[in-house]
Amino acid sequence: MHVMVIGAAGMIGRKLVQSLAADGTAIGAEIERLTLVDVVAPSVPPAFPMAEALEIDLSQPGSAAPLVARRPDIIFHLAAVVSGEAETDFDKGYRVNLDGTRALFEAIRQEGEREPYRPRVLFASSIAVFGEPFPEKIGDEFFTTPLTSYGTQKAICELLLADYTRRRFFDGVGIRLPTICIRPGTPNKAASGFFSNILREPLSGKEAVLPVDESVRHWFASPRSAVGFFLHAARIDTAAIGPRRNLTMPGLSALVGEEIEALRRVAGDKAVKLIRREPDPAIRRIVSGWATDFDARRALALGFSAEKSFDEIIRIHIDDELGGSI
Amino acid sequence: MHVMVIGAAGMIGRKLVQSLAADGTAIGAEIERLTLVDVVAPSVPPAFPMAEALEIDLSQPGSAAPLVARRPDIIFHLAAVVSGEAETDFDKGYRVNLDGTRALFEAIRQEGEREPYRPRVLFASSIAVFGEPFPEKIGDEFFTTPLTSYGTQKAICELLLADYTRRRFFDGVGIRLPTICIRPGTPNKAASGFFSNILREPLSGKEAVLPVDESVRHWFASPRSAVGFFLHAARIDTAAIGPRRNLTMPGLSALVGEEIEALRRVAGDKAVKLIRREPDPAIRRIVSGWATDFDARRALALGFSAEKSFDEIIRIHIDDELGGSI
Ligand SMILES: NC(=O)c1ccc[n+]([C@@H]2O[C@H](COP(=O)([O-])OP(=O)(O)OC[C@H]3O[C@@H](n4cnc5c(N)ncnc54)[C@H](O)[C@@H]3O)[C@@H](O)[C@H]2O)c1
Ligand SMILES: NC(=O)c1ccc[n+]([C@@H]2O[C@H](COP(=O)([O-])OP(=O)(O)OC[C@H]3O[C@@H](n4cnc5c(N)ncnc54)[C@H](O)[C@@H]3O)[C@@H](O)[C@H]2O)c1
Repeated sequence: MHVMVIGAAGMIGRKLVQSLAADGTAIGAEIERLTLVDVVAPSVPPAFPMAEALEIDLSQPGSAAPLVARRPDIIFHLAAVVSGEAETDFDKGYRVNLDGTRALFEAIRQEGEREPYRPRVLFASSIAVFGEPFPEKIGDEFFTTPLTSYGTQKAICELLLADYTRRRFFDGVGIRLPTICIRPGTPNKAASGFFSNILREPLSGKEAVLPVDESVRHWFASPRSAVGFFLHAARIDTAAIGPRRNLTMPGLSALVGEEIEALRRVAGDKAVKLIRREPDPAIRRIVSGWATDFDARRALALGFSAEKSFDEIIRIHIDDELGGSI
Repeated sequence: MHVMVIGAAGMIGRKLVQSLAADGTAIGAEIERLTLVDVVAPSVPPAFPMAEALEIDLSQPGSAAPLVARRPDIIFHLAAVVSGEAETDFDKGYRVNLDGTRALFEAIRQEGEREPYRPRVLFASSIAVFGEPFPEKIGDEFFTTPLTSYGTQKAICELLLADYTRRRFFDGVGIRLPTICIRPGTPNKAASGFFSNILREPLSGKEAVLPVDESVRHWFASPRSAVGFFLHAARIDTAAIGPRRNLTMPGLSALVGEEIEALRRVAGDKAVKLIRREPDPAIRRIVSGWATDFDARRALALGFSAEKSFDEIIRIHIDDELGGSI
């Protein structure tokens, strides 16, 4: 099997590549070839030194065709401009998130017209395809009325993915990710950053700012679950999915207060004391428009799974990022 | 007010232009200028000889900007490749229905960047944005999982319209039309053609073929209602719509058998006898995937309205197409 990861230098991309390199059958078949693509040069994992790393901007016209000409059997498409940037830079958001993805899909179709070809395509979508007001739990048949350009771009790519799959140009699955938490790295300015910051920083003995109050509820899964979703989607019998190819992934609906109590259980009061409350009405307003809970029945029935408590999410971070202990 | 109709040579476009020409305040303000656009030369209505008719292919790169540079206050966008053609000619469907529409939206945004500009845009969408299986009545929050490329293109344009409206590039409303019946003209090969044929042809003393059985249910409105939807959307206070700018229009859910009984009431047994039953499994299969009933609550609350019986639909055809009598 030839596996390609586009967006391989990103947070989820790197972890996915690590998993693929560490377990040569993570996709249910042997990985013979691994191609890593990102606009930022992706690094080759030590466990798979034969992987090829390509520094390519998917949104540049003509860049998708040579990628697809390598005829990967499985394409993980994770490349995207994140929500905040897609909102401030309208052109860039549409160019990368919509046109880049469409160019990839089109290149696959055209490659298949030259010579039969029908790869599996796993696309990273987002719960940002939904927009408030919401029902208490968002079901699998709730409509997509995004309230950001990023969410609009993801929703459009979902539609394209379903149509290209229906027409058998490829075998696609859209993976609607929850907010991935704990995001490793350093605090960033994303409005959602605090959900991770208030755990990650105290776990390393550092202060973190909480801009909203503890009653804020949101929808989460760990980076390990995110990787698990993509690997599962690569292995699954897609006939079982049917034509509705975009799936809300399972996750954990939790309050900020529950995050904090989990932190207390795992790392004690002294960790919790490192959280500094600094209400920020702008962030509060943005976050109040986000989905809080889902009934991800279809994905669960198809065997996708995520964490059931924030204790688990924190332990995964300690295992995967902090060498197993704090 | 400067009004532009794109797709002005089409079935609904021509009727819309007639209404605009006949009632100079049909949009709730005086029409000072009327620009008609279509890839087929639109005809200038005798009642508005100053209208300008432009033969332009919206899907040709660069064609939208000069249209928008005329700065119409209201743009009715009806141009599209129909369902069957979008399915058989994948490239053309995406080029006209998606790229053409996006080019129009982008041209408006760019015109507004040059100098403030925020026209109202009324977009013809379709219930083809929905795909089976359906609930008994499709509500306003049901998800869009189209099962045709045409439906996909319409659903994508709806998402773009909502985002461009949210960002205040224009003031858009997506009008999800029911199947328009009785479609005037001659029988065509569209799979939906028979819904109109079995009424229109007998009303003119001609035979018509019915390829499905009488228990088939579908969702209808007259051409007059279609025009009414667009005019109402041009006049309405769009603030009342909120950010969910795509509206399922009201319609009539009816059985083929009810169409036939209405025909009998209006035109007698001899008209009904002109319907020849010729079951066509291919058409039956296509039609069985179509939506049968909607709860179009939002549009009704906003004042959109349609027919309540097939008798009405038939009478409208007699009035508008047959000079008032049969
Ligand atoms: N992390 C989350 O909470 C979350 C939630 C929902 C959806 N997603 C989606 O999952 C995917 C991965 O998320 P992530 O958190 O790893 O994001 P990330 O920003 O860490 O990674 C995205 C990667 O895409 C690359 N990229 C951007 N533009 C590119 C282009 N033009 N050509 C090639 N590569 C390009 C970036 O360089 C980056 O390495 C994204 O599509 C994202 O929208 C993430
Ligand atoms: N009639 C229905 O039952 C129905 C139902 C749902 C939606 N709609 C939508 O309503 C709109 C009008 O429908 P109609 O029944 O009048 O269709 P129609 O086919 O009679 O009219 C469409 C018009 O668009 C024009 N057109 C096509 N490609 C073009 C291009 N590239 N540039 C400029 N003009 C172009 C055609 O020449 C035609 O005059 C369409 O968008 C259609 O998809 C119609």
